Amino acid sequence: MLVAVVGVGLVGSEFINQLLSIPAESSPFRLVSLSSSSRTVFVDPANAISSIDKWKSILSASNEKPNYENLTQKLSGLIDPSTKVAIVDNTSSDDIASLYPQWLRAGINVITPNKKAYSGDLGLYEDILRASKETGAKFLNESTVGAGLPVISTLKELVATGDKVKKIEGVFSGTMSYIFNEFSTGSPDGPSFSSVVSVAREKGYTEPHPADDLNGFDVARKLTILARTIGSSSLPSLQSFASVQTSSLIPAPLEGIPTGDEFLKRLPEFDAEFDQMRKEASRESKVLRFVGVVDGVNGEVKAGLEKYPTSHPFATSLGGSDNIIMFHTERYSPRPLIIQGAGAGAAVTAMGVLGDLLKLI
Amino acid sequence: MLVAVVGVGLVGSEFINQLLSIPAESSPFRLVSLSSSSRTVFVDPANAISSIDKWKSILSASNEKPNYENLTQKLSGLIDPSTKVAIVDNTSSDDIASLYPQWLRAGINVITPNKKAYSGDLGLYEDILRASKETGAKFLNESTVGAGLPVISTLKELVATGDKVKKIEGVFSGTMSYIFNEFSTGSPDGPSFSSVVSVAREKGYTEPHPADDLNGFDVARKLTILARTIGSSSLPSLQSFASVQTSSLIPAPLEGIPTGDEFLKRLPEFDAEFDQMRKEASRESKVLRFVGVVDGVNGEVKAGLEKYPTSHPFATSLGGSDNIIMFHTERYSPRPLIIQGAGAGAAVTAMGVLGDLLKLI
Ligand SMILES: NC(=O)c1ccc[n+]([C@@H]2O[C@H](COP(=O)([O-])OP(=O)(O)OC[C@H]3O[C@@H](n4cnc5c(N)ncnc54)[C@H](OP(=O)(O)O)[C@@H]3O)[C@@H](O)[C@H]2O)c1
Ligand SMILES: NC(=O)c1ccc[n+]([C@@H]2O[C@H](COP(=O)([O-])OP(=O)(O)OC[C@H]3O[C@@H](n4cnc5c(N)ncnc54)[C@H](OP(=O)(O)O)[C@@H]3O)[C@@H](O)[C@H]2O)c1
Repeated sequence: MLVAVVGVGLVGSEFINQLLSIPAESSPFRLVSLSSSSRTVFVDPANAISSIDKWKSILSASNEKPNYENLTQKLSGLIDPSTKVAIVDNTSSDDIASLYPQWLRAGINVITPNKKAYSGDLGLYEDILRASKETGAKFLNESTVGAGLPVISTLKELVATGDKVKKIEGVFSGTMSYIFNEFSTGSPDGPSFSSVVSVAREKGYTEPHPADDLNGFDVARKLTILARTIGSSSLPSLQSFASVQTSSLIPAPLEGIPTGDEFLKRLPEFDAEFDQMRKEASRESKVLRFVGVVDGVNGEVKAGLEKYPTSHPFATSLGGSDNIIMFHTERYSPRPLIIQGAGAGAAVTAMGVLGDLLKLI
Repeated sequence: MLVAVVGVGLVGSEFINQLLSIPAESSPFRLVSLSSSSRTVFVDPANAISSIDKWKSILSASNEKPNYENLTQKLSGLIDPSTKVAIVDNTSSDDIASLYPQWLRAGINVITPNKKAYSGDLGLYEDILRASKETGAKFLNESTVGAGLPVISTLKELVATGDKVKKIEGVFSGTMSYIFNEFSTGSPDGPSFSSVVSVAREKGYTEPHPADDLNGFDVARKLTILARTIGSSSLPSLQSFASVQTSSLIPAPLEGIPTGDEFLKRLPEFDAEFDQMRKEASRESKVLRFVGVVDGVNGEVKAGLEKYPTSHPFATSLGGSDNIIMFHTERYSPRPLIIQGAGAGAAVTAMGVLGDLLKLI
């Protein structure tokens, strides 16, 4: 299989390293193209890029700007009955995501941790499904939810084998997981909300602007992907992730503050509110968790802060920036199927991407 | 894909029902053969068995005895570039397991929840690997560990993408899970061991002879499968599941008692011993769990009763007859990847089998 990689940031670099760590003799993959936002290279499959030490310099030595028409044409020209082709999109770009239907129609498989296409406009998503059906080229997106955790593949298998998904409920954001594991442990007191967010940012767990995590959009995107993967008529048809009922944690007066620094400077004004919520939860022997729910029984898809008993796995079992996902289904009932572990990080995300690529072999 | 099913017991029947529930228009599968231990049918692929209501009577109307030479020949004669063939072994038979190499050499894919081949004699296992390599026919065994839980596929992906498995630790037996979730909750007292085992047997959670669960062999078999799937030189090479260090829970004087009834009548003689262990665990704020460990760091594979703090997921998160499996790896570190849920039952086991079949498409 010929592989072209678009996006060589944290995940992209790690993905390339994992791909090239498969011993050349036994590797079914040949890496023929790399693109960053400013440069691209394309090599003859007979001279595939194979060195972990050299791929970076090969790309940076190029003066060619990315041209995706060109890439599509070159790759589709190489497809034959014994040669499959895949593009791995490791960007978070909407522009790149909009190219998937075109790639799939050209017979090119698409693998990505990029949530944009699957959680964005319903028209694009439906076009991806159609394009994949037309040519049989596959799109795989395991790492869009829970990074390397087997969330999407498990959900697909439940659905394909005829199980009925009643409810999926989980902590889907590593950032939100960290923040509330620190902030709310069941005790009425603890560190202030703003201090926990500040520390999370210092540790690199939040986006540069913490509001980009606290708005809940990342969770809404993941829920959109899960709901669409279930594809059930008992779920609302989501026009985009914006259709998910999302309760943002950004205090209203802080909406639209342009910089993360300014945002964090003003966040302490709202510590008392968060403290109050923690106290109320504690009084009921509960903790606060920012969760996402896809509820096939009540036809709801929603993200927001909820209270869970201190004996609930969301309280007892979570730590660090772990994700936890519970699948309540007809077969996994009354006790759910649970998957838990790191839901972010370049190594585990790249692993999910490479795992998808291996499924095509 | 043409599918032949051997074994139509609990899992086999449910598997056939799930397979035939895929709408015929969109199903990639045609069911061409069924075998029980006493009868077999083989139909022309053009007249594939398609009715959930009729397959049982089709089989019971047959007077033909199973003949696996015959089945292999007929199936391999149907393989062509556009037609794949799979045999699904839903028995627990060693005889059937010994046929896998022959089937794989004939180009027939093998799918099974039957642990015998993968946890038995190393020679058979290695022959299966060789045979699969020779023809490219696949053997898939997701349901041999954790039933429908994505245990084997997750482990394979960790290994294939270059992660290093440090330790796998889990509660792998639904029966043992139930028994110790009931027996040991952290409190020094509780129901007697023999009474818990009796209730488990009444509920159908144990084998007819409870010693067949309490010997720990089922866990040893699963650990053998996991260790072989990792295939690391830092693990002992297991000649068979009997090479696993297994601490049986059968009191020595009760070894070899022929019937379950007699066994249960005498088990109360040993309640005081189990009670003592529970008290000691409780004094250290721990619970007792029967766990399996594949330890790549210390090069150990072992099954036995261990103590875990009452705050550990094996204590807080388990219920019913759930399995829980923790993967400690280089990438999932310091916090493991955890998979939890029902690890037995016909519906979830059959789902894992059908999921494997879908991977071949
Ligand atoms: N990191 C995680 O833990 C994680 C977890 C799950 C999913 N993901 C997803 O994985 C993807 C990559 O994440 P990341 O952490 O690797 O982000 P990153 O470090 O910011 O890397 C993204 C890369 O994409 C490149 N890029 C942007 N637009 C491009 C274009 N039009 N053509 C070619 N390259 C373009 C950028 O290249 P330049 O440097 O040249 O601008 C950048 O290097 C994102 O979709 C993210 O949501 C990440
Ligand atoms: N049940 C579970 O929860 C579970 C979970 C994980 C894995 N598994 C595994 O799944 C497999 C099936 O389990 P099960 O619960 O379905 O057992 P089961 O109800 O006892 O069914 C086994 C069937 O295999 C048939 N059989 C035995 N030898 C045969 C032969 N030589 N040729 C053809 N058929 C033969 C038997 O047929 P007759 O009735 O004609 O004798 C019986 O119907 C076992 O390997 C088990 O370990 C089960």
